[in-house]
Amino acid sequence: MHFSSRVERLGGKGSTAWGIHFRGVEAQRRGEDVILLSVGDPDFDSAPNINAALKASLDAGDTHYGDIPGHPALRAAIAKYHTRLTGQEVEAGNVVVMAGAQSAMFAAAQVLLGPGDAVIVPSPRYVTYEALIGAAGASIVDVPLYPERGFHLDPADLEKAAAQPHVRGLMLTTPNNPTGAVMTREEVEAVADVAKRRDLWVLTDEVYASLAHERPHISPASLPGMAERAITVCSLSKSHAMTGFRIGWAVGPKDFVEQYCRLVLCMIYSCPPFIQAAAIEAIEGDQSAQKRMKEAYRARGRLVFERLGQSPHLSCHRPEGGMFVMVDVRRTGLSADAFANGLFEEERVTTLVGDAFGPEAGGHLRLSMTYDLPAMEEACNRILRFADRHAKRG
Amino acid sequence: MHFSSRVERLGGKGSTAWGIHFRGVEAQRRGEDVILLSVGDPDFDSAPNINAALKASLDAGDTHYGDIPGHPALRAAIAKYHTRLTGQEVEAGNVVVMAGAQSAMFAAAQVLLGPGDAVIVPSPRYVTYEALIGAAGASIVDVPLYPERGFHLDPADLEKAAAQPHVRGLMLTTPNNPTGAVMTREEVEAVADVAKRRDLWVLTDEVYASLAHERPHISPASLPGMAERAITVCSLSKSHAMTGFRIGWAVGPKDFVEQYCRLVLCMIYSCPPFIQAAAIEAIEGDQSAQKRMKEAYRARGRLVFERLGQSPHLSCHRPEGGMFVMVDVRRTGLSADAFANGLFEEERVTTLVGDAFGPEAGGHLRLSMTYDLPAMEEACNRILRFADRHAKRG
Repeated sequence: MHFSSRVERLGGKGSTAWGIHFRGVEAQRRGEDVILLSVGDPDFDSAPNINAALKASLDAGDTHYGDIPGHPALRAAIAKYHTRLTGQEVEAGNVVVMAGAQSAMFAAAQVLLGPGDAVIVPSPRYVTYEALIGAAGASIVDVPLYPERGFHLDPADLEKAAAQPHVRGLMLTTPNNPTGAVMTREEVEAVADVAKRRDLWVLTDEVYASLAHERPHISPASLPGMAERAITVCSLSKSHAMTGFRIGWAVGPKDFVEQYCRLVLCMIYSCPPFIQAAAIEAIEGDQSAQKRMKEAYRARGRLVFERLGQSPHLSCHRPEGGMFVMVDVRRTGLSADAFANGLFEEERVTTLVGDAFGPEAGGHLRLSMTYDLPAMEEACNRILRFADRHAKRG
Repeated sequence: MHFSSRVERLGGKGSTAWGIHFRGVEAQRRGEDVILLSVGDPDFDSAPNINAALKASLDAGDTHYGDIPGHPALRAAIAKYHTRLTGQEVEAGNVVVMAGAQSAMFAAAQVLLGPGDAVIVPSPRYVTYEALIGAAGASIVDVPLYPERGFHLDPADLEKAAAQPHVRGLMLTTPNNPTGAVMTREEVEAVADVAKRRDLWVLTDEVYASLAHERPHISPASLPGMAERAITVCSLSKSHAMTGFRIGWAVGPKDFVEQYCRLVLCMIYSCPPFIQAAAIEAIEGDQSAQKRMKEAYRARGRLVFERLGQSPHLSCHRPEGGMFVMVDVRRTGLSADAFANGLFEEERVTTLVGDAFGPEAGGHLRLSMTYDLPAMEEACNRILRFADRHAKRG
């Protein structure tokens, strides 16, 4: 069968990174004692009030086509929630509901990027970005985020990247997956400065915005002069443990919303009305479950940081936000790949090799904080044991 | 904001066709007695056993990320259902679950078509095709379907189109929206013949397959030598009144499935597990509601065809399948646009102007059969009254 030239650009390192994870899942299904720290799926379930809202909507017969940009009530709820998360004042007309942040990012790339265009994306970055930019026909200009800077941006590197030809905008993630870094005010100001100076748009994936633990979340959209050029993508997947609901959104200026809806119509048409009802309850209903989850991720991050930090062979980046910790295994003398494979074989802990996210994360493993504290402690013990056993003697 | 060149190709006549519909919805909300024959959203609700399956899945905690190609049990169920609908033997590995047929078509175009490629699409055609082909960067080679042939394909026109440069494949719809035609065996054989001779793929939208009333549904995929080049898109939206569930699929050869899944991962990631559970129940559970709906559409189609056929000013195409009837208003001396606007203003019936689907449907209105028989009868009375009042005297 003849495929489009696009398919050559849908792969990338990211897509092969999940080998250990899939082996782990299989071993777990065989009944083995595996701790899966390889995916970002919350161990929490969606709160009962959210599920109840979905059922009530279903019972009310909300099973027909929804509005293309989303239900007006959900758009209004998201607008308020966006203001709570970012400080930026927006209204329902700035919001388009999408089938999760992944689809919102894909659609944004389609609308903003075409063949010949380039977009600045810091590296390491989330594994699907290359594919969705490739699908849009555009190319990436890298900005390296080095572990020595805690994976924070060097404004000089950003400036250099922005001077490249055909650059139309920036695609950012804060709090970051995989690095766990939360962009500082200085970084976001540097982004806003270059974007305004060079007339670039800024598309930011902020799905971990509500999980900024050690540093306040700052959205590029909230800075002066940015509303007209900033698009913010978010979802309820991580904040409200709703990964399986596939509900997210994009917030942007009205001219963006207009073009975006034309794409949404032909890309997915609309989102299930009963899921939108659940999303309204998630945003406007009781937030206690959400607060408990946020505290849990914070406590787990601190535990892992402290426990792994005790090893002479490992160093851990303090997770500033999100649900991941990056662990530097370079002092063990093992490659991240060898460490991750050995750790799975000998200790039945699955992790994701940092290289999947970009060369700057080479020698690192990404750990998901998706188990309760005793299990996270057990995972740390296994990792420490493996590191002790295999670290080369200095 | 700078948009990609793609956005210029997301519009088209289709997107402006809904004006009367939106005015009709507003009038209905004001309490006016409007009959909306402008959209294809079933007046039936999803059956209770389907909703119950969704709730049970939700209660079981199936609220986390699903598998990218879909749940294995749903893929297996769809494979069997596909065989039931088309006669083509496939297995779960040939199936990818998608968020509705719209997203399945969009994703297929992305994988099969790139800049410089062309695809044959008969006209009139469903309104979103131009946009999704445009998003993929490809162009359309028209094949006209004339009302004089009951909107059936002339193989000579197909042959001419296939000889155009850069043609990679065909995009078809059977049973057809808007025309209500079901492709005959001769037409499908002509398609298969040209596809095999010229090494083209055939992508067919078969969402009305289970609603083939007056002629058996024949899928291009079922013909000899077509399995390796045929992709069949279908959904539960129309057959099971599940438009709001956004659940559909693509069935194709394994090499297609492999590329398709790479796109699905970065485009939507996966579909909600509890909706997939509902889909399994829809396919494998009690089919009595589905059968009742099918009979209802058939009866409505016959009623409209007979009633409007009594007018000296109108001619009606006998609906062979699906949920639409095409009415030729040319003998009234009014344009389709003037007829549709007048009909709404004076009689409060909304319809869709045929021109939105292609010039061959000019002078026609598309009527949805989405009301019960008494209401459809009342709609016919209003249409007949309007036609009588405004038809020019011969």
